[in-house]
Amino acid sequence: MQASTGKLQALFRQQFPGLIMPLSAAEAVSALAAIAGSEAVIADTSRMGAYLNEPRKRFHQTAAAVVLPAGVETLQAIVRWANENRVGLIPQGGNTGLVGAQVPLTGTEVIVSLSRFDRIRAIDTAAGVMTAEAGVILENAHRAAEAQGAMFPLWLASQGSARIGGVLSSNAGGVNVLAYGNARELTMGVEAVLADGRLYRGLNALKKDNTGYDLKDLLVGAEGTLAIITAASLKIFPLPEDHETALVNVASPEAALELFQFMRQRAGSRLNAFELIPAIGLEFQLRHGMLDADPTASPSPWYALIELTRMAGTAPGALQQALETALEGGLASDAVIAESLADRTRMWAFREQMSECQSKEGASIKHDVSVPIAAIPRLIAEGSAAAERLSPGIRPVPFGHMGDGNIHFNFSQPPGADARSFMARYDEAIHTAIYDVVLRLGGSVSAEHGIGQLKVDLLRQVKDPVALDMMRAIKTALDPNGILNPGKMLA
Amino acid sequence: MQASTGKLQALFRQQFPGLIMPLSAAEAVSALAAIAGSEAVIADTSRMGAYLNEPRKRFHQTAAAVVLPAGVETLQAIVRWANENRVGLIPQGGNTGLVGAQVPLTGTEVIVSLSRFDRIRAIDTAAGVMTAEAGVILENAHRAAEAQGAMFPLWLASQGSARIGGVLSSNAGGVNVLAYGNARELTMGVEAVLADGRLYRGLNALKKDNTGYDLKDLLVGAEGTLAIITAASLKIFPLPEDHETALVNVASPEAALELFQFMRQRAGSRLNAFELIPAIGLEFQLRHGMLDADPTASPSPWYALIELTRMAGTAPGALQQALETALEGGLASDAVIAESLADRTRMWAFREQMSECQSKEGASIKHDVSVPIAAIPRLIAEGSAAAERLSPGIRPVPFGHMGDGNIHFNFSQPPGADARSFMARYDEAIHTAIYDVVLRLGGSVSAEHGIGQLKVDLLRQVKDPVALDMMRAIKTALDPNGILNPGKMLA
Repeated sequence: MQASTGKLQALFRQQFPGLIMPLSAAEAVSALAAIAGSEAVIADTSRMGAYLNEPRKRFHQTAAAVVLPAGVETLQAIVRWANENRVGLIPQGGNTGLVGAQVPLTGTEVIVSLSRFDRIRAIDTAAGVMTAEAGVILENAHRAAEAQGAMFPLWLASQGSARIGGVLSSNAGGVNVLAYGNARELTMGVEAVLADGRLYRGLNALKKDNTGYDLKDLLVGAEGTLAIITAASLKIFPLPEDHETALVNVASPEAALELFQFMRQRAGSRLNAFELIPAIGLEFQLRHGMLDADPTASPSPWYALIELTRMAGTAPGALQQALETALEGGLASDAVIAESLADRTRMWAFREQMSECQSKEGASIKHDVSVPIAAIPRLIAEGSAAAERLSPGIRPVPFGHMGDGNIHFNFSQPPGADARSFMARYDEAIHTAIYDVVLRLGGSVSAEHGIGQLKVDLLRQVKDPVALDMMRAIKTALDPNGILNPGKMLA
Repeated sequence: MQASTGKLQALFRQQFPGLIMPLSAAEAVSALAAIAGSEAVIADTSRMGAYLNEPRKRFHQTAAAVVLPAGVETLQAIVRWANENRVGLIPQGGNTGLVGAQVPLTGTEVIVSLSRFDRIRAIDTAAGVMTAEAGVILENAHRAAEAQGAMFPLWLASQGSARIGGVLSSNAGGVNVLAYGNARELTMGVEAVLADGRLYRGLNALKKDNTGYDLKDLLVGAEGTLAIITAASLKIFPLPEDHETALVNVASPEAALELFQFMRQRAGSRLNAFELIPAIGLEFQLRHGMLDADPTASPSPWYALIELTRMAGTAPGALQQALETALEGGLASDAVIAESLADRTRMWAFREQMSECQSKEGASIKHDVSVPIAAIPRLIAEGSAAAERLSPGIRPVPFGHMGDGNIHFNFSQPPGADARSFMARYDEAIHTAIYDVVLRLGGSVSAEHGIGQLKVDLLRQVKDPVALDMMRAIKTALDPNGILNPGKMLA
């Protein structure tokens, strides 16, 4: 059957030399093996699981093949072949993305895994630059920097699996954004393969360089639709000597916002984190034995996890002094400062276990949204009210990066409800209600995770149409045959 | 004469409806007056001086007209008309640019002055955002922020005239880049008119927003070739309570580099400035009475101007402690710390008067270049040697932003030489020699000032050809008729 399809296509190509016939999976596999070596190609669907199964278990599509090129020139040859034959390519890192950008849509695509691009090419602590290939695991990038007394300050829950190319393509950024910025701000330059197979050599790591358009920032966050990132020059920073961490009792999101302004005024760029956590999070975590002790000073409806960096040669105590002033001024009602590494670890566990503790309480509807910082209290109030009207007894669990405006506005099912019917009945309605509030407040419907396949339609509904047109024009200009991650981000 | 040209063109347009005839200046003036009001149009070349005469006195071209729209809708109508009629538009701010991006090339262009877009639309110190129109003078933006207890940390020598639109279009950035970043990093969003007259509404000021390509960073630094910026959301910061400033004696650029690493490790993000100044700068300034007193501790071949910020609630003395350690360790040989505002002002004057003091010593050949920070000593050594070989007795005057890798690598003529013949004989040869060294060290031939008209050919010679192709593809995608600042940046 394959042979006759192949002969038929060969006949068509002979008769109509300009006509591009879609390749069969077998033809694709054969061509890729010729380019990359057969050991670098996975043709058997039953062996593709690690590349097809994404973390949210939402997308279940196969691929024509998975190819794992060993180096840039092989990757370039693959892309040239794909461009000539109109084969869709999906660049993939650690397969940790949450919106399906890294897995197939139609089943005819070839997944290109960058996992073998795993070298740290250079570290220059004097210059504050680390050059890492796209397949380097984020945690390994951290270790490489620390081995030289520096840090690469981009921390994600998935850092044990996420790889640099994917981190940059999704412009990832977690707790670190407040002090150090997101992936885009931590990237000085990229090397990438374009849709026609040519190599964009943009690794130069100059802080001041006004010789043309900012192509680097265009490629970062483009979710693999404009080029395939192969390496990046990343900013690394001197390691702080220590951190000062506290868990502070605040009465409300409004009070937390005031405390945030105060801390920002006092600490400036030393403010490393300001995370908002609701009391329900403590309730969930204690109930399910997720904390070895209660990390808080006393009961409170809300908590702020606050952290300052301290560089060598600076006297400790800045956080204590700031909190004393805050307590005197009524900006907070109680606080406890970490006195040991164990204290600090426990406080951060309290914050980092928020998603996990929800899963122990049944179904959860999640939103990755941001609003202007001053609108956070309204987001929480209006969003919670809207959700309660739809599903009485639903439990709001909003937490996250107050200093960025990025709140993980999640909702746990009412206690005792049936998880499956709760999700079936309310998932879409709650999303619509929350996105309405977010957009009304001038916010974003995807603060961190990106668009991928999950939010393509949503983007088309909510994004400024002029911006969408600009994006489409740029996409067409850089990828005229539409082979780079087709169907992701833009329809 | 004008009338018959007009009739002839009208006849052509009637006969060949698809054909675009170039408009005469008179036709352009007439159309602009109908759109913007005649009081907003300057047709008389003798009244265009403020818009045609640029600071380096290098470019002397006329314009078809100058138009000063009062608002966004009028500007959109102007751009639509220009797009339909293939009229080149040159967006202009304060006419302070140093590479001729803001003045005409062919004489057929219309200068569009954004000077009437001079409102601060909003300041939100809680959110850390100021929304300013493109015509706001940079110094006025500073004042508006300070009136609310905040600062917009982008300082330029030309800030009394430069306007926000031009500052962003050239991605300007001076001393502030080390601590706060350049214009691009200080901009959260832009509003801009596209080549077809549509308005890109990208002012939303969200720190975390992954809903599409990074159009903001593409438009910033595009020198008016991709869109006309009309307003921007700018980052503002809490005002430090104080600064700690010192002038430190260092033996060489290598020693300065070591001291920089040390200070970066000690002070982290509190390090506000690290400027390298050669002894010849002190010699020039004292000789010409430009300083009321010698600001240095004692004679030294090189000086480092070092400054730390201090936020409210932080104990003073961090700079003193750091310098004591540095002196003990031999990283510096002497130092003086500013003890008053007058001291600090004098130290900064010493740095800021470097260009001016050169002009008092005759002709000067200037380079706005950057290299990786670690390569600064080699840049200075090899560049000075190359220049000396070409012009014995030439006096190197390298100074600037060590922390950015951006050295203003200038050369003063040998004492007593004839200025005009010196420039005629050596300007191009010295530029070629210095750019050779810069490129060999992996640097940039335009660190701050951009490309404009001055460096179009240079860019084509030195820039990665793949990057140039990407730029051209994006330019064609966003401005198919080539009406936005034609001939600037790209040939």
